[in-house]
Amino acid sequence: MAKLIKKRSKKAGLPPGTLVHIGEKKVGEPKITIIDYDEANFQEREVKTVEECFSFREKPTVTWINVEGVHQVEVVEKLGNCFGLHALVLEDILNTDQRPKMEVYGDYIYIVLKMLYGGDVNHPMETEQVSLILGLNFAISFQEGKEGDVFDPVRERIRSGKGLIRKMGSDYLAYSLIDMIVDSYFLILERLGEKIELLEEELMKDPTHKTLQEIREFKNEMIFVRRVVWPLREVISGLERKESPLVKETTEIYLRDVYDHTVQVMDAIEVYREMLSGMLDIYLSSVSNRLNSVMKVLTIIATIFMPLTFIAGIYGMNFKYMPELEWRLGYLVVWLVFVIVGVSMLIYFKKKKWL
Amino acid sequence: MAKLIKKRSKKAGLPPGTLVHIGEKKVGEPKITIIDYDEANFQEREVKTVEECFSFREKPTVTWINVEGVHQVEVVEKLGNCFGLHALVLEDILNTDQRPKMEVYGDYIYIVLKMLYGGDVNHPMETEQVSLILGLNFAISFQEGKEGDVFDPVRERIRSGKGLIRKMGSDYLAYSLIDMIVDSYFLILERLGEKIELLEEELMKDPTHKTLQEIREFKNEMIFVRRVVWPLREVISGLERKESPLVKETTEIYLRDVYDHTVQVMDAIEVYREMLSGMLDIYLSSVSNRLNSVMKVLTIIATIFMPLTFIAGIYGMNFKYMPELEWRLGYLVVWLVFVIVGVSMLIYFKKKKWL
Amino acid sequence: MAKLIKKRSKKAGLPPGTLVHIGEKKVGEPKITIIDYDEANFQEREVKTVEECFSFREKPTVTWINVEGVHQVEVVEKLGNCFGLHALVLEDILNTDQRPKMEVYGDYIYIVLKMLYGGDVNHPMETEQVSLILGLNFAISFQEGKEGDVFDPVRERIRSGKGLIRKMGSDYLAYSLIDMIVDSYFLILERLGEKIELLEEELMKDPTHKTLQEIREFKNEMIFVRRVVWPLREVISGLERKESPLVKETTEIYLRDVYDHTVQVMDAIEVYREMLSGMLDIYLSSVSNRLNSVMKVLTIIATIFMPLTFIAGIYGMNFKYMPELEWRLGYLVVWLVFVIVGVSMLIYFKKKKWL
Amino acid sequence: MAKLIKKRSKKAGLPPGTLVHIGEKKVGEPKITIIDYDEANFQEREVKTVEECFSFREKPTVTWINVEGVHQVEVVEKLGNCFGLHALVLEDILNTDQRPKMEVYGDYIYIVLKMLYGGDVNHPMETEQVSLILGLNFAISFQEGKEGDVFDPVRERIRSGKGLIRKMGSDYLAYSLIDMIVDSYFLILERLGEKIELLEEELMKDPTHKTLQEIREFKNEMIFVRRVVWPLREVISGLERKESPLVKETTEIYLRDVYDHTVQVMDAIEVYREMLSGMLDIYLSSVSNRLNSVMKVLTIIATIFMPLTFIAGIYGMNFKYMPELEWRLGYLVVWLVFVIVGVSMLIYFKKKKWL
Amino acid sequence: MAKLIKKRSKKAGLPPGTLVHIGEKKVGEPKITIIDYDEANFQEREVKTVEECFSFREKPTVTWINVEGVHQVEVVEKLGNCFGLHALVLEDILNTDQRPKMEVYGDYIYIVLKMLYGGDVNHPMETEQVSLILGLNFAISFQEGKEGDVFDPVRERIRSGKGLIRKMGSDYLAYSLIDMIVDSYFLILERLGEKIELLEEELMKDPTHKTLQEIREFKNEMIFVRRVVWPLREVISGLERKESPLVKETTEIYLRDVYDHTVQVMDAIEVYREMLSGMLDIYLSSVSNRLNSVMKVLTIIATIFMPLTFIAGIYGMNFKYMPELEWRLGYLVVWLVFVIVGVSMLIYFKKKKWL
Repeated sequence: MAKLIKKRSKKAGLPPGTLVHIGEKKVGEPKITIIDYDEANFQEREVKTVEECFSFREKPTVTWINVEGVHQVEVVEKLGNCFGLHALVLEDILNTDQRPKMEVYGDYIYIVLKMLYGGDVNHPMETEQVSLILGLNFAISFQEGKEGDVFDPVRERIRSGKGLIRKMGSDYLAYSLIDMIVDSYFLILERLGEKIELLEEELMKDPTHKTLQEIREFKNEMIFVRRVVWPLREVISGLERKESPLVKETTEIYLRDVYDHTVQVMDAIEVYREMLSGMLDIYLSSVSNRLNSVMKVLTIIATIFMPLTFIAGIYGMNFKYMPELEWRLGYLVVWLVFVIVGVSMLIYFKKKKWL
Repeated sequence: MAKLIKKRSKKAGLPPGTLVHIGEKKVGEPKITIIDYDEANFQEREVKTVEECFSFREKPTVTWINVEGVHQVEVVEKLGNCFGLHALVLEDILNTDQRPKMEVYGDYIYIVLKMLYGGDVNHPMETEQVSLILGLNFAISFQEGKEGDVFDPVRERIRSGKGLIRKMGSDYLAYSLIDMIVDSYFLILERLGEKIELLEEELMKDPTHKTLQEIREFKNEMIFVRRVVWPLREVISGLERKESPLVKETTEIYLRDVYDHTVQVMDAIEVYREMLSGMLDIYLSSVSNRLNSVMKVLTIIATIFMPLTFIAGIYGMNFKYMPELEWRLGYLVVWLVFVIVGVSMLIYFKKKKWL
Repeated sequence: MAKLIKKRSKKAGLPPGTLVHIGEKKVGEPKITIIDYDEANFQEREVKTVEECFSFREKPTVTWINVEGVHQVEVVEKLGNCFGLHALVLEDILNTDQRPKMEVYGDYIYIVLKMLYGGDVNHPMETEQVSLILGLNFAISFQEGKEGDVFDPVRERIRSGKGLIRKMGSDYLAYSLIDMIVDSYFLILERLGEKIELLEEELMKDPTHKTLQEIREFKNEMIFVRRVVWPLREVISGLERKESPLVKETTEIYLRDVYDHTVQVMDAIEVYREMLSGMLDIYLSSVSNRLNSVMKVLTIIATIFMPLTFIAGIYGMNFKYMPELEWRLGYLVVWLVFVIVGVSMLIYFKKKKWL
Repeated sequence: MAKLIKKRSKKAGLPPGTLVHIGEKKVGEPKITIIDYDEANFQEREVKTVEECFSFREKPTVTWINVEGVHQVEVVEKLGNCFGLHALVLEDILNTDQRPKMEVYGDYIYIVLKMLYGGDVNHPMETEQVSLILGLNFAISFQEGKEGDVFDPVRERIRSGKGLIRKMGSDYLAYSLIDMIVDSYFLILERLGEKIELLEEELMKDPTHKTLQEIREFKNEMIFVRRVVWPLREVISGLERKESPLVKETTEIYLRDVYDHTVQVMDAIEVYREMLSGMLDIYLSSVSNRLNSVMKVLTIIATIFMPLTFIAGIYGMNFKYMPELEWRLGYLVVWLVFVIVGVSMLIYFKKKKWL
Repeated sequence: MAKLIKKRSKKAGLPPGTLVHIGEKKVGEPKITIIDYDEANFQEREVKTVEECFSFREKPTVTWINVEGVHQVEVVEKLGNCFGLHALVLEDILNTDQRPKMEVYGDYIYIVLKMLYGGDVNHPMETEQVSLILGLNFAISFQEGKEGDVFDPVRERIRSGKGLIRKMGSDYLAYSLIDMIVDSYFLILERLGEKIELLEEELMKDPTHKTLQEIREFKNEMIFVRRVVWPLREVISGLERKESPLVKETTEIYLRDVYDHTVQVMDAIEVYREMLSGMLDIYLSSVSNRLNSVMKVLTIIATIFMPLTFIAGIYGMNFKYMPELEWRLGYLVVWLVFVIVGVSMLIYFKKKKWL
């Protein structure tokens, strides 16, 4: 699992708005792609220099600029200056240790989201920060640049003109991107759901210390997911409340839909958390039960053999005058006593339900 | 118990409003029945094709269209298009993994509810999603199509004209359907109540690991029920607040009644949850107590026989000069010592209340 | 303790407003008494038929109709019709499984309250539902009809003209009745307070499994009381906020007083709950402590006698050449060893503070 | 610690506003002192009869009447009637089992507060109820009459004219009294803070069952303090919000200050509570750890001596043909075996870190 | 860790506004530095007497007076009087036991913050109180005077004119100081994060009682940090809501940024707290597991050697007629029995997975 708090020491004491990248470098060169479309036209290209983006600024068509890799400060800075972004926004884009949030600036909205990856056996859960700038006729998305891209279906839809996307504005584009991210959470939830079922089975059959370890890891993953999803609700309800004219009324209904999905995700997380705490109780109680059964074995053995050994000890004494030792049937009688004592102990434990 | 998160992978990446059925297919062919009534007239019929419903759209009488089985996308789609439903609504009707909610669209209200089945020994608890569309003079209900139907009493009331239902509009019809669903929760609660009493008895008499298992299962069922009931409160209070002119003032008082019922259900769930957590404490403590009593048996046995065995061991030694061995009464005296030591140990434990 | 959820199956599927009695039948025939008064006049009588009440409807004096026993549907129905009560109100009066609530109808207010009885050693805690109808110049109270009546002091005050009651309207009468019920909660609290003190003493002196049982029962009683008292706060604050002109300003100050009492009751309940959870910790820890001391006894005995028995065993061996056995003082030396080993073990345990 | 719920049975069924003293009688005769002042003049005297107070009613100077001892109903009644206090207010003054609260009546404000005493080793924590009546040009304070008086510094300040008090009105006087009470809470907190430090030390060094007892007592004290302080916040913020013209704007800033203090007290209480719950975990775990170490001693002893005793037992057998017994070095070899077995066991436990 | 409640006894009973220093004296002489600047000019000097500050009061440039050391009452008093600060504000500046808060006075805002130091192995966590006075064209900061100063970067920025600071007013200066303090929290969080990772490792490998101790200490540190950070959110959101015209709109966006940081800090604290509680469960369960394994060793040893010792005991008996003793192969057979019993026990435990 990724660290909770990334190193910010680099930035300590610098004036606000100073542009410093915080996080890991995940790709070589930042990759910038531009998709420009309206209902009739469509163009897509990958650009080499940031400057090529500038011409799209004033175009009335919807422009989506996607930047993969935010570790090159100048790229973000130039783009930010061209599109008139506040220095604090640029600072936040570069700092990949943000909490999901939405901020309304005069003529654009700044949105920070977190994508979730992994969560299966071989891949620990990881996040990738996605920053969205929603302007009147453009949307800019900044990704850290992990491999694979959840935005591909949106690209495909724009290319093919399927769905409403080509008929709607940049706000619908932003919604589509957010929707893709929230959809990816369901995938994570499915995986977590499978994991929790495996855990339950393990717990029923044969809980070991490893099971507890897994419960704890699962719990930490839940904390991780929760931290990413919780603030999202506020982000989306903020957009829905139309605090900015950039979000049109026709898009509102779609935001309500994605809001619903977020609530569902949160709901499932809470349910998992409750189930986990129930599991912990089962685990602890099964440890106690096992101790109980160990102790029972010990007690049964001791209770049967201690009296027997004592009796054998008696007739191992070397007193001169021990009449029993002289008896013809002495040895046989002692064996009888052994059997009687042993069997009656067993009956006693049977009755106590220890056997 | 049903899964928490249903497979959504089918839909990943599809544009919003794409109609895909998510859930199990529960009946063969979707069954559509139409009931059309006002105070004077009444007609009921089962239709073969969706198109037969279309003529009812403009009729001033109240029309109730009930669809059992939502796995045939075209049926839902055609009906939706005829009655002017939004694509997102149709998408949600087909996705049986919704959270109860209410959404006000221009001229209709969309309500999602969950019915609860089972919860007894042989039937795990299950949900069935019910979608309601409340329009000016119509109500459409979509069920997944489980066997048995909680809406029958409403049908009967319309047929016979008993109660107010024939005199009221479509909002009262919707209320009646919601009321039926909430009523069915009380049945579930009764069953859970009986279960919890059995659990309490078991816990008092002879708690085993199975008891803990049952407590956990009960707890998971509570989580399940809670997830279904909790959002309902908001749904009904939303309707009651009359956010839409579709809900008339005369119906408001009835919605308040069903709201009260919801609160009662939630109340009972909370009480059950608290009782369960108390049970867990009892269980864990009874495990500890049992360990205590096992250990006491062991300690008593060991404390009595260890000294005795030691004494017997002494006189089993082969020293040449052991005066006691020569004594006439040596053996008798040792037996006296055995009895004295044993009895005094027993008295000691009696005093310590271990016996 | 009474059941949490009463059988509602009788009512399943019936149209709203259908009058069915839910609960136990507690008296034979419902008993109806009428008290009619103003500052100057006073009349009190028990009536045989409901119809005798009707004439009081239009009288300008304050009329208090008290009905003991709600299991005869017709009695409630006739009274309801005469005083213009809504069908849902009548349904709720007959259903003794209500949650305390207040509902404002056009010209009357409907209030549901719960009286608490018992809670001592021999009597499990029980509730009795009281429904109040507050009209302009009348108040109707419905009780389930348990023996004994907390309303007697109010009757006495009306008869004697003591206090303000004869000078005030029906709202003050309703307040007086509510005040009586809330006062009776303090009695219950006193009893619970005594119980908790006994529990604390028991816990300090000699906690047994029975103590835990009692803690659990107490906790369940707290849940029971809480369920009755919690919604009351809203009821009274609703009345105080004067959502209806039926509550006059002069009465408001008295409602604030009874509201204060409710808050005090709730406060005490919360304190009891916290104290109980502290008790549970003490109990569990004392179980652990006892296990510890049992184990110490076992360990001390084993640690002393095992080495001794081993030494005795050595000299019980039958080797031909064992020089010690031939020594004159061999036996004495062995005894010395026994004493030294035993005493040094005791000193060791003394130092470890196990003795 | 004082009881949570005082006997109210005396009052059961009495009409509201009936004056009955509830609580302990703490002084002999109620003591009434009057301080009357404005910026220029000052007079202080102790009066014998209540009637002497009446003349101060209409004086424009600020009059502070302090009554110590509220068990004489007539004293409170006469004073109340003279200053026009509502019957319910008088009832509450006499009932020392109130929750802190503030009530605005037409031309006066009624405030109930609780002073805290004790909390050290020899004195259990106790409360004293203080009722304040704040009128336009007077303030009346009712104390139960415990020894010692936290109001002395205020008296001294009025006498000497130090600070603002002589320049301000009765609202500032009331503020000063409240401030004194809140200040006294810090003293209690200091004591609790010392206690918690002692507890921590005890817990680190040598936690016994007594430690747990103390943790529980501390927890109960926290509940006690919390109950007194929590409602205070609302009282003071109510005054600050100036719901009555009796509180002037110049005093508001001082009320904000005392409100801050209340928040600080509450803050500290919450911190103490959290620390206590952490302590409980440590305690329970140290009990488990001790059990572990007891069991280790037992296991080590048993594991070393059981095999040894068995070996000695073998050569104590009386078979005719046991070649080893005849060996010259048999006995020596057995001793070697004893040492080897014993030492290897010790090494094993050393490796397992049990020694 | 510093004490929670500092000695306030000095102040008990003093009139509000009396100036008394509460806290430790941390430097010798208070050190006062003045920085005065606007976009064009800049001057910085350390003054010897408070009076030198007075001339800056009316200057239109921004003046920042920094006072290190608040234990000399007269310094604070004189400065306060010159800049027209309320007596209660001065009292709070001198009392280093404040909770972070913000208070709007007519023409200035009073802000209390806490700096955090230490938190690593050798330095316990400590706080330093910082009071800020924000006026129209001045800002005064009071520090307790610990070594090292987090405000240095701000000074440097003013000197060099880097960033916006020289172009903005006193509100931006105040923001910069608050930002420095919040930034320093991230440093503390980084340290805590490293600590928690070490703890996790320790817990996985070899948890001892020391681990629990560390968990508890960490938890107490979290309580400590939380107490400092929690109220900060309200402080900053209060400033942001522009309750005073002193905060200009251009600064608002920066306050939102620092508010975001505060939320992030709080978020991380909550996550740490949850992780800690998970650790505690692991720890307690590992203690139980270890007990289990100790008991298993004991039980295995006892179960193998008790029956064997008993058998050896039988043939140690001295009966005259014991046929086995005479057998040629008797001894060999007994050895066979020993091996068979021992091995079958081992197989049994292997099957039970105890070995």
